[in-house]
Amino acid sequence: MEDIAKRIAQLAPAVREQSPLVHCITNYVTVNDVANGLLAIGASPIMSDDLDDVDDIARLASAVDLNIGTLNHRTVTSMRHAGKVANAEDIPVILDPVGAGASRMRNEAVSRLLEEVQFAVIRGNASELGFIAGLEVSTKGVDASEEDISRDVVSLARDVAWKYNTTVALTGPVDVITNGTETVRIMNGHPMLKSVTGTGCVTTALVGAWVAAARSSVLRAEEADLMAAAAGAVSMMGIAGEKAFAEAGEKGTGSFHMALIDALSTITADDFMQMGRYGQEQL
Amino acid sequence: MEDIAKRIAQLAPAVREQSPLVHCITNYVTVNDVANGLLAIGASPIMSDDLDDVDDIARLASAVDLNIGTLNHRTVTSMRHAGKVANAEDIPVILDPVGAGASRMRNEAVSRLLEEVQFAVIRGNASELGFIAGLEVSTKGVDASEEDISRDVVSLARDVAWKYNTTVALTGPVDVITNGTETVRIMNGHPMLKSVTGTGCVTTALVGAWVAAARSSVLRAEEADLMAAAAGAVSMMGIAGEKAFAEAGEKGTGSFHMALIDALSTITADDFMQMGRYGQEQL
Amino acid sequence: MEDIAKRIAQLAPAVREQSPLVHCITNYVTVNDVANGLLAIGASPIMSDDLDDVDDIARLASAVDLNIGTLNHRTVTSMRHAGKVANAEDIPVILDPVGAGASRMRNEAVSRLLEEVQFAVIRGNASELGFIAGLEVSTKGVDASEEDISRDVVSLARDVAWKYNTTVALTGPVDVITNGTETVRIMNGHPMLKSVTGTGCVTTALVGAWVAAARSSVLRAEEADLMAAAAGAVSMMGIAGEKAFAEAGEKGTGSFHMALIDALSTITADDFMQMGRYGQEQL
Repeated sequence: MEDIAKRIAQLAPAVREQSPLVHCITNYVTVNDVANGLLAIGASPIMSDDLDDVDDIARLASAVDLNIGTLNHRTVTSMRHAGKVANAEDIPVILDPVGAGASRMRNEAVSRLLEEVQFAVIRGNASELGFIAGLEVSTKGVDASEEDISRDVVSLARDVAWKYNTTVALTGPVDVITNGTETVRIMNGHPMLKSVTGTGCVTTALVGAWVAAARSSVLRAEEADLMAAAAGAVSMMGIAGEKAFAEAGEKGTGSFHMALIDALSTITADDFMQMGRYGQEQL
Repeated sequence: MEDIAKRIAQLAPAVREQSPLVHCITNYVTVNDVANGLLAIGASPIMSDDLDDVDDIARLASAVDLNIGTLNHRTVTSMRHAGKVANAEDIPVILDPVGAGASRMRNEAVSRLLEEVQFAVIRGNASELGFIAGLEVSTKGVDASEEDISRDVVSLARDVAWKYNTTVALTGPVDVITNGTETVRIMNGHPMLKSVTGTGCVTTALVGAWVAAARSSVLRAEEADLMAAAAGAVSMMGIAGEKAFAEAGEKGTGSFHMALIDALSTITADDFMQMGRYGQEQL
Repeated sequence: MEDIAKRIAQLAPAVREQSPLVHCITNYVTVNDVANGLLAIGASPIMSDDLDDVDDIARLASAVDLNIGTLNHRTVTSMRHAGKVANAEDIPVILDPVGAGASRMRNEAVSRLLEEVQFAVIRGNASELGFIAGLEVSTKGVDASEEDISRDVVSLARDVAWKYNTTVALTGPVDVITNGTETVRIMNGHPMLKSVTGTGCVTTALVGAWVAAARSSVLRAEEADLMAAAAGAVSMMGIAGEKAFAEAGEKGTGSFHMALIDALSTITADDFMQMGRYGQEQL
């Protein structure tokens, strides 16, 4: 198992070189952050959420990002369709199950998406992934309990990875990236990331860009290093958060927010080697 | 009648301590500003506007913010439902009647909301509140006239407070906060606040957070100091505007906008005592 | 033919003096940028997209900006209606055909809008205008080909201006403004403008504000200098981009984005004379 920091640093330049087009069906709260985050790292965002429009736009994209933050029935239908189109075209799809567990509508949307779409990566927090881990149990009549959610986050992330045959990026005080077999913990980040909008949603979109770049970097898509892609995107946000706090944190959250985009736009492959704090294990 | 500055300064720390969840059904122009404004003062935003979703989300919230800035028929229905759910659950609801008076659709939406929902606070400008003051007259066949709108803003705010049994925050060159009996004028602020997006919408959301904190600070919700909550939130924006202009106003409106969020995120209880300019009167 | 720099510099103060109300039906990705851009130059934005609401709001406006960036069937219907209302009321309408050529839905929306609405100015990139130039051909069964798109951009812009009896602002490495007879090339701008959201959408909205100001500056609307208005708005963004890069480009795209709004808010008539790089020709 090669050192994850090296694998990330090797992959990092590909995002800017490939400039992957990431089709986002995402919430209107953080959509501007998401677009600026993607642009900052050299990727190209395109947002489109009408059922008729996504049919064409998803096919043009190198990755599709589905985020239920401000879902409605119209856009959930579009997300399901975009996911299926992307699957059929072998375009990777990333899920951000914002607020899963908090409402019946969000729960149903996530359940349907997980039934109908194969996701390359699912990026969420412990509470959202706890809901997803409980889905199978849930069909036996037991809802995701607090017990499920408070389980060790590594076990939780692995459960979801196995259950949905996917790579999971569970973000929190320590981030956990796992495909069920290989697991990487990331200790980067700063608490102020929770005081500005979009750091979760942007991270998910960055995962989309990194996954697209990882697939373009290999001859056969199934050889793409999705672990390095997901860990690269997640640690990119963490490292950018550390840099932004050092640069502007004392001034307040407005300056921090701006400095975060600055950091995303100037981060180098070497930063992952120097600043990345990774723990790595194999089942 | 205790000094309003003291009442505000006493309440101020509760917002950051309680971190109230504010459910916003708001416009897509300033929604990112609103979310960052709430995060800056230590509150938690959640945006949700689908009829099915708001049913659950409103129940989770400590305050509900209804803002008609980019209303459509779907979201107006959701606002009406969220308001009724919140009323039934004794969760305070705040109204921002953006553009009331400017279109029939906005007028009808505001009329319906005022008929069906009991608001804890209504926050608007003189023109919007002038329309609301004229609603009863309007049912006699007379529309809100310029005369209504140009009346002294204190009378106007008191009329609305009495008519709808609510607390009114009328913002403008001088802000007026009134419950119909007690009235506070606020002389804070800076003209540049009108040159960036969202200062009105953010103020309304901050009122929601302060009202939630005020209610959590007392044993019985009806004892909550809504006057201090509304005056605190409104003067918070005014003081932040003054600080932001001093910090960055000369550079332009982009820097001012960022410095405004910085100021919201660093303002202290003491700032209300030192910088707050309040006039107070009792009927 | 008077020097275009002088015509722009003469018109520039009118935007801030008139503070035109620009009604935008625009995408939710860059809508906050658009609103802040309009506010920065002294104009007033109003966003409204419900069919019932736009009927009133479009009539209040001094210009209407239609942008299909995140179109859906509901808002396309509203755009068509707003355009017709504005035409009937002699209010100038500006089109931003975001992504025209990339999906059938976008293509159909643009075709319908061009059939039903007379635009004062169309602002797009070479690819979008290439699609529009090919529309007539397209009805003969030939789609817009790469050949069409790669034609010299001046010819392309002139074709669209003639075909739709409008003024065209084609933006790219060199911007081309033409009414089919008079043509202005603008050599301002900076590559970093492509690394932040909204510079295209904001430019279109600024064109709306400048056109409104140009019409208010003359006795009869048909005498308004639309060439100076479109060239003024487009070069305003280019000059602001140069200033923003000089001020903050080295820090990253977040600082550049903020500095861009700063520059828009502080640009003077004299800047067009000093920094504007224009090429001018007459058929």
